[in-house]
Amino acid sequence: MKVGVVGASGYVGGEIVRLLSAHPYVQLVQATSESRAGKYVASVHPNLRKRTTLRFSKIADLEPCDLLFLALPHGRAVGLIQHMRAIAPRIVDLSADFRLKQKTEYPKWYGYEHPHPSLLEEAVYGLPELHRQQIRDAWLVSGVGCLATSVILGLAPLFKHGLVREHMVIAEGKLGSSAGGSAPSLASHHPERSGVVRSYEPTGHRHTAEICQELAFGKSPAVMLSATACEMVRGILSTCHVFLKHDLDDKAIWRVYREEYGDEPFIRIVKERQGVYRYPEPKIVAGSNFCDIGFERDPHSDRLVVISAIDNLMKGAAGSAVQAMNVMFGFEETTALEFTGLHP
Amino acid sequence: MKVGVVGASGYVGGEIVRLLSAHPYVQLVQATSESRAGKYVASVHPNLRKRTTLRFSKIADLEPCDLLFLALPHGRAVGLIQHMRAIAPRIVDLSADFRLKQKTEYPKWYGYEHPHPSLLEEAVYGLPELHRQQIRDAWLVSGVGCLATSVILGLAPLFKHGLVREHMVIAEGKLGSSAGGSAPSLASHHPERSGVVRSYEPTGHRHTAEICQELAFGKSPAVMLSATACEMVRGILSTCHVFLKHDLDDKAIWRVYREEYGDEPFIRIVKERQGVYRYPEPKIVAGSNFCDIGFERDPHSDRLVVISAIDNLMKGAAGSAVQAMNVMFGFEETTALEFTGLHP
Amino acid sequence: MKVGVVGASGYVGGEIVRLLSAHPYVQLVQATSESRAGKYVASVHPNLRKRTTLRFSKIADLEPCDLLFLALPHGRAVGLIQHMRAIAPRIVDLSADFRLKQKTEYPKWYGYEHPHPSLLEEAVYGLPELHRQQIRDAWLVSGVGCLATSVILGLAPLFKHGLVREHMVIAEGKLGSSAGGSAPSLASHHPERSGVVRSYEPTGHRHTAEICQELAFGKSPAVMLSATACEMVRGILSTCHVFLKHDLDDKAIWRVYREEYGDEPFIRIVKERQGVYRYPEPKIVAGSNFCDIGFERDPHSDRLVVISAIDNLMKGAAGSAVQAMNVMFGFEETTALEFTGLHP
Amino acid sequence: MKVGVVGASGYVGGEIVRLLSAHPYVQLVQATSESRAGKYVASVHPNLRKRTTLRFSKIADLEPCDLLFLALPHGRAVGLIQHMRAIAPRIVDLSADFRLKQKTEYPKWYGYEHPHPSLLEEAVYGLPELHRQQIRDAWLVSGVGCLATSVILGLAPLFKHGLVREHMVIAEGKLGSSAGGSAPSLASHHPERSGVVRSYEPTGHRHTAEICQELAFGKSPAVMLSATACEMVRGILSTCHVFLKHDLDDKAIWRVYREEYGDEPFIRIVKERQGVYRYPEPKIVAGSNFCDIGFERDPHSDRLVVISAIDNLMKGAAGSAVQAMNVMFGFEETTALEFTGLHP
Repeated sequence: MKVGVVGASGYVGGEIVRLLSAHPYVQLVQATSESRAGKYVASVHPNLRKRTTLRFSKIADLEPCDLLFLALPHGRAVGLIQHMRAIAPRIVDLSADFRLKQKTEYPKWYGYEHPHPSLLEEAVYGLPELHRQQIRDAWLVSGVGCLATSVILGLAPLFKHGLVREHMVIAEGKLGSSAGGSAPSLASHHPERSGVVRSYEPTGHRHTAEICQELAFGKSPAVMLSATACEMVRGILSTCHVFLKHDLDDKAIWRVYREEYGDEPFIRIVKERQGVYRYPEPKIVAGSNFCDIGFERDPHSDRLVVISAIDNLMKGAAGSAVQAMNVMFGFEETTALEFTGLHP
Repeated sequence: MKVGVVGASGYVGGEIVRLLSAHPYVQLVQATSESRAGKYVASVHPNLRKRTTLRFSKIADLEPCDLLFLALPHGRAVGLIQHMRAIAPRIVDLSADFRLKQKTEYPKWYGYEHPHPSLLEEAVYGLPELHRQQIRDAWLVSGVGCLATSVILGLAPLFKHGLVREHMVIAEGKLGSSAGGSAPSLASHHPERSGVVRSYEPTGHRHTAEICQELAFGKSPAVMLSATACEMVRGILSTCHVFLKHDLDDKAIWRVYREEYGDEPFIRIVKERQGVYRYPEPKIVAGSNFCDIGFERDPHSDRLVVISAIDNLMKGAAGSAVQAMNVMFGFEETTALEFTGLHP
Repeated sequence: MKVGVVGASGYVGGEIVRLLSAHPYVQLVQATSESRAGKYVASVHPNLRKRTTLRFSKIADLEPCDLLFLALPHGRAVGLIQHMRAIAPRIVDLSADFRLKQKTEYPKWYGYEHPHPSLLEEAVYGLPELHRQQIRDAWLVSGVGCLATSVILGLAPLFKHGLVREHMVIAEGKLGSSAGGSAPSLASHHPERSGVVRSYEPTGHRHTAEICQELAFGKSPAVMLSATACEMVRGILSTCHVFLKHDLDDKAIWRVYREEYGDEPFIRIVKERQGVYRYPEPKIVAGSNFCDIGFERDPHSDRLVVISAIDNLMKGAAGSAVQAMNVMFGFEETTALEFTGLHP
Repeated sequence: MKVGVVGASGYVGGEIVRLLSAHPYVQLVQATSESRAGKYVASVHPNLRKRTTLRFSKIADLEPCDLLFLALPHGRAVGLIQHMRAIAPRIVDLSADFRLKQKTEYPKWYGYEHPHPSLLEEAVYGLPELHRQQIRDAWLVSGVGCLATSVILGLAPLFKHGLVREHMVIAEGKLGSSAGGSAPSLASHHPERSGVVRSYEPTGHRHTAEICQELAFGKSPAVMLSATACEMVRGILSTCHVFLKHDLDDKAIWRVYREEYGDEPFIRIVKERQGVYRYPEPKIVAGSNFCDIGFERDPHSDRLVVISAIDNLMKGAAGSAVQAMNVMFGFEETTALEFTGLHP
């Protein structure tokens, strides 16, 4: 099976290349970068030295293949989608261009009118844990928002089971610097970024739209999202505060999560009574496709705190995308995603 | 004026020594450490080389002086207080032993019955921004909880003005490793602690008690506190979510903060329209006694997000304590607290 | 094939468990920890959740198997070796107990008389790049010193080809905190260790002995080693300064390295004319078994600077050990060592 | 006394502004930035909020004052020097434009012919520890190179006393990211720069020229310099390897350092027998003007390792410059430089 990556010089594109280069059933035949065309992929992603001898090509040079991953900036894929479809019958687009079902959300959150609203119906939100069946048969699968993924996977069982009072969540995501992409700026300049805990989107984060969409099990949720940048390169920890309709104890909550996620290969419920690792930590999942989820009932109120950790470039982007590809083509879902993370 | 520090080998004690060693009106005459007695203070706090030649003494060796700072573990000061009072007529105790007014809070949050409840009435909570008048005349001033300080200072104007719906706040504190003290453990072992974003008290944090007490302007607030450890040594960023009773715009909220804090030397309202530094950051206040406070109105709901940043060892402990001492003795309040922080 | 790990609760032992748990031809049947016996391996190494359900056993419970990895503190394996040999016919010992050929080096560098000097002749230094043939047939393979590995691999071609004036090298290793092991101490306490660049062994580092041994191609070298701790968890960068006998240009030096390492699966010569990644970096090899080597000729003198980067827990310990096992049993040498590292 | 800073939006310029804003005898009346003219200084250096209300002006707007600090890129000051001298009778230039005495060094190391070689004779290298008398009377004082400063101060006593064999030193500087200035680039992009130990100038570092000049006590030294970037924002640790002519013990070396530096307010000899802080560390001097110097004799050879730590923006730039100003105007040399650094 032949696959291409469009926009492979960025962090998400590079991560897909890394994963595919170790995928036993897939041949990565092309990786584009308009600005680096002609250069070795490994000159931009130095971890891939001795792993791939591929050079970047241009979009104009794309040759027919079985699947294309699009890892372009938001707003770019939407204009290229028909062209891409002519090159490959199946597409996984990692931008936000096909994540939202309601076309009215695009001007609200992304500042543009969606030119192909009919495709929004065809596209499937690429989280296998929620849409495995649809992904299997889709030609167009949307990648996921990294912060959104951590919140959605953390809360979906609770919302699905109707356990959350007022359908409201206050979610605070703490993100590593790779979530900001590969383009340097003053905000990402090391002396300015190193060691910060920086509130960068206290309100108005675009992923709110995705989260509302994916947690709406019959009723639209109220999602209060805030994002804070922390000192790490990869990783997201989301701390989500919900209030329970009924006074559920730990066991009852466990049961809900186990029911929904018991068979999921990439979700681990992390909740230990003691020790250093009793809740999820992004450091532990860095490089892996895991989403670790934990929770704690507030003994002084009806609050439930749900904590989830992912690697933003993996489960929050490239990992879920490759997982979706595995689903689309009937491969074992964990293929090329077996890396377990490091300790320490 | 002669001053002593009891428990000077810890981080807070060392910070008080550092501040006092540059204080023009105060002579630091003794600094105790039971385990390091006889050793140079600078052998434990190497930044103080060439600054002080003081050696640690023992509590048993304390000589009369004008004021004692107690920087002992929680539960230690309460048993020593009468002894200490015999040595110095005025005391600033940095533990939690005299922070709470209600004796019933001690068994609930700290696990012990308070043996001197009458002293709880005499003690003043040592945040000059809230209790300047009382501190001036107190013989016993309590230090402040670091996480509590960031939340209290961030929200006091809103609660005082009765602007918060249901008197409820969901507050998430992100803390540096020095907040855990100077004793090594697996959780603080560098390979385990470096680079983490670790949820360590999703619920049940003791500072809840202080926050409730200090934000109770007539009515008891509902404080939902969570604490997350981040990769930094000094610093706290608290992100506080409240819902407004009335739809206030930025200007109206500014006005409230300016009214309460306009003359405060250590509070800065940080809210810029653009740029990297538009919200408070603990990195920028590290080493200083500032509390930077910012806020953002959620355009999609009635939520107001308040963000406050302090150095936990300074404004959250030693800095506020020295500030309180300055108030108690009529010194210029900023004396020895002028350090402005570094950039970058 | 059945394998066991003795001392699996430390970082090196945990890393071996991680590697073996993904090894297709090996079954990890036992992992000992005297202090954690009975607990899940994944409770100590949380990255292994959902990967292994093994529990720690005790040395006393070891059952016969095909190979044992010993990951015990220096001086422990030497006393247990005959006992271990009775359990498994082949052993890879990761301590320093069997690294040195000369028994006189043990009192000098490790402070003990070696009780089994005859075994020192049987043991093979476990760096496949230098001793592949001998490893194949050895029953006892010694693990490698992490700092030593980076220096040895960086310089072996130059010393082997007799290019170094006075056989002297000044080598400075910069090490991450995991090289200090898993036991907490004041030096490793996060507030003390975070952000440091700390000279901790300017002279007298024990790995000097190994380096001298492995770089002695006919003549004993003069190795001036210094070690500095840096802010990272995994990784070593060694900067080695040698003076050339003859004025070799880049091409000539390239040729020497290519001759020695051209077929090595885990050595990459990294030397680019421009860009951010033109020299080796430990960050890029973290988690992988690569040793990246680069060099630069000083245009103002006859100095050659050789730079080499490894992950101390991988190529500097567990990775080389598993590589050695692959050699011993005739597996493809890269088996279970394919992880390529992350970017960023 | 009125003072101005030219080029105040960079890190060194900002640091001078910070120091002067707390200087009791100096009034900072102007701070220029061509790109930020009109904006508040505190909008670029957020630590200065509430400390200064100064706005950036342009060079064209400079008004006469008593002294100007020039903090411009290399090669800029040399063209402006006569213009600046017309504005202020005394100048401290922090670039490299007036550091070197030999005009032939400029094309060699900095790539340009020096247009005013006669000024090189008038300019004084601004390290008070070496040139206090000349600084006092100079109209033009040159700032110092940060890496150079750490090496020069570490080794000057040894070279002055003629103790170093072959006048040779192998010096490895480990630098924080602020040494690279305030302009973002891929190399400084946080995901790329965070956690690295990156060899960026293994040979050919420009500061070689300064070091050779300042360590030439009668005989030109051989300086083998290498520079490695580490994970820290502020700070330099230099590890310098020299070989001793005679076998000096610790006491004899101590005596040499004490003779040269015994009265220096900003130099501390750090050499303790045990403990975590037995050698100099940049973390401990961050924000301060200290240069901490330690050493260790290699028991296995005639090598002496000298370790020195500074804050590159302070003792390595702005701190030394303000110290020089204090000398020039007869102020107490430590004025405005009293900050002692933080622990932890």
